[in-house]
Amino acid sequence: MTKVIIDCDPGHDDALAILLAGQHLDILGITTVAGNQTSDKVTANALKIVELMDRTDIPVFRGAQVPLLRKAIHAGHIHGETGLDGPDFPTPVKEVEDRHAVDFIVQTLMAEDDVWLAPVGPLTNVALAIRQRPEIVSRMAGISLMGGSLTTGNSTATAEFNIWFDAEAARIVYDSGAPIKMCGLNLTQQANATDREIERIRNQGNRVGEVVVQLLEFYLDAGERVTGVRKAALHDPCAVAALIQPDLLEFEAMHVSVETRGELTYGMTVCDYRHLRGFGSSQVDRGPLRQEANVEVAMKIDESGFLDLLIDALGRY
Amino acid sequence: MTKVIIDCDPGHDDALAILLAGQHLDILGITTVAGNQTSDKVTANALKIVELMDRTDIPVFRGAQVPLLRKAIHAGHIHGETGLDGPDFPTPVKEVEDRHAVDFIVQTLMAEDDVWLAPVGPLTNVALAIRQRPEIVSRMAGISLMGGSLTTGNSTATAEFNIWFDAEAARIVYDSGAPIKMCGLNLTQQANATDREIERIRNQGNRVGEVVVQLLEFYLDAGERVTGVRKAALHDPCAVAALIQPDLLEFEAMHVSVETRGELTYGMTVCDYRHLRGFGSSQVDRGPLRQEANVEVAMKIDESGFLDLLIDALGRY
Amino acid sequence: MTKVIIDCDPGHDDALAILLAGQHLDILGITTVAGNQTSDKVTANALKIVELMDRTDIPVFRGAQVPLLRKAIHAGHIHGETGLDGPDFPTPVKEVEDRHAVDFIVQTLMAEDDVWLAPVGPLTNVALAIRQRPEIVSRMAGISLMGGSLTTGNSTATAEFNIWFDAEAARIVYDSGAPIKMCGLNLTQQANATDREIERIRNQGNRVGEVVVQLLEFYLDAGERVTGVRKAALHDPCAVAALIQPDLLEFEAMHVSVETRGELTYGMTVCDYRHLRGFGSSQVDRGPLRQEANVEVAMKIDESGFLDLLIDALGRY
Amino acid sequence: MTKVIIDCDPGHDDALAILLAGQHLDILGITTVAGNQTSDKVTANALKIVELMDRTDIPVFRGAQVPLLRKAIHAGHIHGETGLDGPDFPTPVKEVEDRHAVDFIVQTLMAEDDVWLAPVGPLTNVALAIRQRPEIVSRMAGISLMGGSLTTGNSTATAEFNIWFDAEAARIVYDSGAPIKMCGLNLTQQANATDREIERIRNQGNRVGEVVVQLLEFYLDAGERVTGVRKAALHDPCAVAALIQPDLLEFEAMHVSVETRGELTYGMTVCDYRHLRGFGSSQVDRGPLRQEANVEVAMKIDESGFLDLLIDALGRY
Repeated sequence: MTKVIIDCDPGHDDALAILLAGQHLDILGITTVAGNQTSDKVTANALKIVELMDRTDIPVFRGAQVPLLRKAIHAGHIHGETGLDGPDFPTPVKEVEDRHAVDFIVQTLMAEDDVWLAPVGPLTNVALAIRQRPEIVSRMAGISLMGGSLTTGNSTATAEFNIWFDAEAARIVYDSGAPIKMCGLNLTQQANATDREIERIRNQGNRVGEVVVQLLEFYLDAGERVTGVRKAALHDPCAVAALIQPDLLEFEAMHVSVETRGELTYGMTVCDYRHLRGFGSSQVDRGPLRQEANVEVAMKIDESGFLDLLIDALGRY
Repeated sequence: MTKVIIDCDPGHDDALAILLAGQHLDILGITTVAGNQTSDKVTANALKIVELMDRTDIPVFRGAQVPLLRKAIHAGHIHGETGLDGPDFPTPVKEVEDRHAVDFIVQTLMAEDDVWLAPVGPLTNVALAIRQRPEIVSRMAGISLMGGSLTTGNSTATAEFNIWFDAEAARIVYDSGAPIKMCGLNLTQQANATDREIERIRNQGNRVGEVVVQLLEFYLDAGERVTGVRKAALHDPCAVAALIQPDLLEFEAMHVSVETRGELTYGMTVCDYRHLRGFGSSQVDRGPLRQEANVEVAMKIDESGFLDLLIDALGRY
Repeated sequence: MTKVIIDCDPGHDDALAILLAGQHLDILGITTVAGNQTSDKVTANALKIVELMDRTDIPVFRGAQVPLLRKAIHAGHIHGETGLDGPDFPTPVKEVEDRHAVDFIVQTLMAEDDVWLAPVGPLTNVALAIRQRPEIVSRMAGISLMGGSLTTGNSTATAEFNIWFDAEAARIVYDSGAPIKMCGLNLTQQANATDREIERIRNQGNRVGEVVVQLLEFYLDAGERVTGVRKAALHDPCAVAALIQPDLLEFEAMHVSVETRGELTYGMTVCDYRHLRGFGSSQVDRGPLRQEANVEVAMKIDESGFLDLLIDALGRY
Repeated sequence: MTKVIIDCDPGHDDALAILLAGQHLDILGITTVAGNQTSDKVTANALKIVELMDRTDIPVFRGAQVPLLRKAIHAGHIHGETGLDGPDFPTPVKEVEDRHAVDFIVQTLMAEDDVWLAPVGPLTNVALAIRQRPEIVSRMAGISLMGGSLTTGNSTATAEFNIWFDAEAARIVYDSGAPIKMCGLNLTQQANATDREIERIRNQGNRVGEVVVQLLEFYLDAGERVTGVRKAALHDPCAVAALIQPDLLEFEAMHVSVETRGELTYGMTVCDYRHLRGFGSSQVDRGPLRQEANVEVAMKIDESGFLDLLIDALGRY
């Protein structure tokens, strides 16, 4: 089984990502990072999730409490006060490990071969790990992340939440030379849950599924309040699905970096896809030379194949 | 006939924009701005074009010689050494007016009602005019411009040449409150000339058409060298067509401003079209509130209708 | 007599600069710029001042109403609601000229030799003039301005008000190649009025002096409220004194430009005076090469000589 | 004895800082950071220095190899190819510890009370430690650093090398809330070595002193090539002296932060000392409110007292 460290800020869709990974990947550890909610809350949520999965053998490590440079702005209006509102989770018995998330990432990558990172929150931990021990870049199998966008953002017109929350960290990771698969908003908007998926999960009749139903009902309600449409993109599980069943997604290689100085574009993943736009204009190369492709950007996902994979995994608990 | 001031940096597609306007609009004057080439060259080119059209009654005014803040970087590799390479134009006899372009724009807008500006080069002149006499914003009929992009850029991954050449000027214009119709790269890439259009123009058998054929052959050659495809977007005439036959285009209203501080995004037209992307994600409003729509962004053009309009106009000379 | 155009935003110390110039320089015109107060108010104030001087032969031209790129933030807490609070000025009878300030500056510099600009407010007009007609840079005698600082700022820790109000305009002017004499805060803090100077002016017993007394009393009161010290730097007249009696000041040539992108340093005049600090450190040249000196920065002023010059001029009305 | 971790990039003056500390402080460890030279070189140099001191009991930990966000630009033209050119050091026998510098800093501060950090290189390690474990800020005794400037820079007109090398890291440290004593260039230029000091050290006749003589001769030669003056500021030992004999220095409390976005001011320590300039101008508070003092900025040093302290320490080896 593919070995993975899941770096997350649960978060409703983070929970689904972990549950999906639990059936198909060898989760070496879960590291938490402030993002959707504070470090305390997302760490408690990660513990709740491994207890729900009955996988308390998976160690949970607390990571960065604030972004590298900017002030933390959490997303309580989407994920609620706890960051995982909806179900009534019992207070977790399992405890967080003593080691810091960054140390766990560094030491694991230095000790084991072929380990993937699957960051589905802000990239603060991964950036700190890379800056502390640059050698991990060539040690890891790669990074399959949820973040950014080829097209439009959500936190701002151009920036997606995970990248916008800590653009400097994202800049370090994207520019690091690590092999990156990126599931951005352009992709995750193609992978939606609706009441139909909730029904399918409910019909599987297991306890984990019942908790997921409550998570998704909260998540769809929150989404509906904001967008007026009763469906919700399942952002984070996409980055996990890309490791389990890569043929569900189509990727294009291109150069991507992160804007950290823009007044209107802070946290934008700047994707150079000029070559994909069939430029009829001869003006295409007026400016700076294009740089080498460094990211595999996910362009399309087979939504029904993805939903089948996810719902099936939930039914196995 | 709709009154218009054409502000341009000819430029092959600028020439087509002027020729199209000459048959359908009341051109009060042509103002020049450094962009595709230097001020001297684009001003000489504007004079050549009105002589070619046999419309030396149209006054030509020289405008800004450099961008507001950044260094000028011209586009000789596309438009050639003269900025209008291809045909052998005679040295123009007509002379440029004494008045500065900015003065002409300000005084015309203050004196006449219902005048449109059609800027198809960098926005330096328009910005200087607005800062010198802010009252012109409420006096003008509007601005129909070629510049920017909803999607990808050409000079850089995110910036189109006209805006990138002087992003600070563009910022002044977009934020001015003036009614703006924007034909960006996302639109103009839908309006292409190929050898078929050259053939149609040649077959009309007139002298102006013959010069246009030479212009387009040079322009297609340059484009083919850069993109490998033998077609060329007719950027600038789109902004003129939007004034002649608006139903050729489809527009969406949205908030647009211009990034002037980005390291990777300098000169990007930041278009907030989150509401058009059918966000399934409840994350859509996490960030700063959306601002009021201030620009009509052209989304689609009827390419064959546009080409018919343009070729017909060329045939009337 | 030295010919000068005074570009200003009166403003208490602007008024003193004009009154000083009126006795020693050939004032070709006064141009106004939004700064200490709005364009309407500072223009009205300029008219009041020439009426007070009984010099209604000096034409007054209205200029820029807003900064090039940032929002206007005026200084009503120092100069009061009218921008020239204190005395009860009659409503001016004299009217502002039709021509715009920028046109006056451009046309005067193109038509006459040996004209100085003395900008003592934000540099918006001068920047617009330079960008509209770059040739004026080599036509003018030079620019003697009040603005910026070699040391600390006032509007922020690093930025002086005139430059901070429109840093992009200042950047254009400093980088233009024009010969610049700069009287910054480091200099003007050496030229202070106290109650002793008010008393000397009052004792001269003339009407203009009496109005100046009221201006200075308001100005010292405002200063005292802010700093706790009953003295007030006579900023603007320093830049005029530099044209009348240059030996009152000591200058050092150095490279100066203006920061427009800093988060903490927007509007700072970045003065490279490393060569004046007697660097014992061998680290002095680790970074980018020093650039050529482009500004004469005023370092010292003979305060008592300056006050004598000013008070004597006030007594001649 | 005061407990201290010395974080450094030796470097000639770093070597002096360590030698000074070795006689008066309890050095818990030396951590290295890329700066004057690469991580490999400065780490080797740190080992050479503890061997020279005959203090191989002091553990040496390797730290950050690159700045957080910008490219590394070392200072070989000052410190030579090895970073510690001059004497012929034997290849060190002592080895660097396994633990990472950041882990050592974090674990030491969490485990022991009253520990000072004395960073005399770029602040990358300290920033990584603070972001990994924010609790260390309230655990530490304080930070006594060499970096920045109240006045002019050396790497650029406004930025001192240590801060400029990694301004983002410095921003994290200055804004962290940690108690900071700052010895900037304004201070260290008052603490110079000349041939006279070399002579005094030579006359003490010990082996360590002889090596220091060779270091200082190289350092003065390099400085003289750059500045034309045969003296060299002893930057780094100042920050150590501030812990040994604080009354040698005078400090002023003020707000200091670090510019990370400026085009001309990247890496400037922005010190708000408006209150110290006796502003006669009432304009002092026009702008944003002053922020709380967070740094004790060293203003003056008793040069001869400092040199006595240093030379005496060197003589004790």
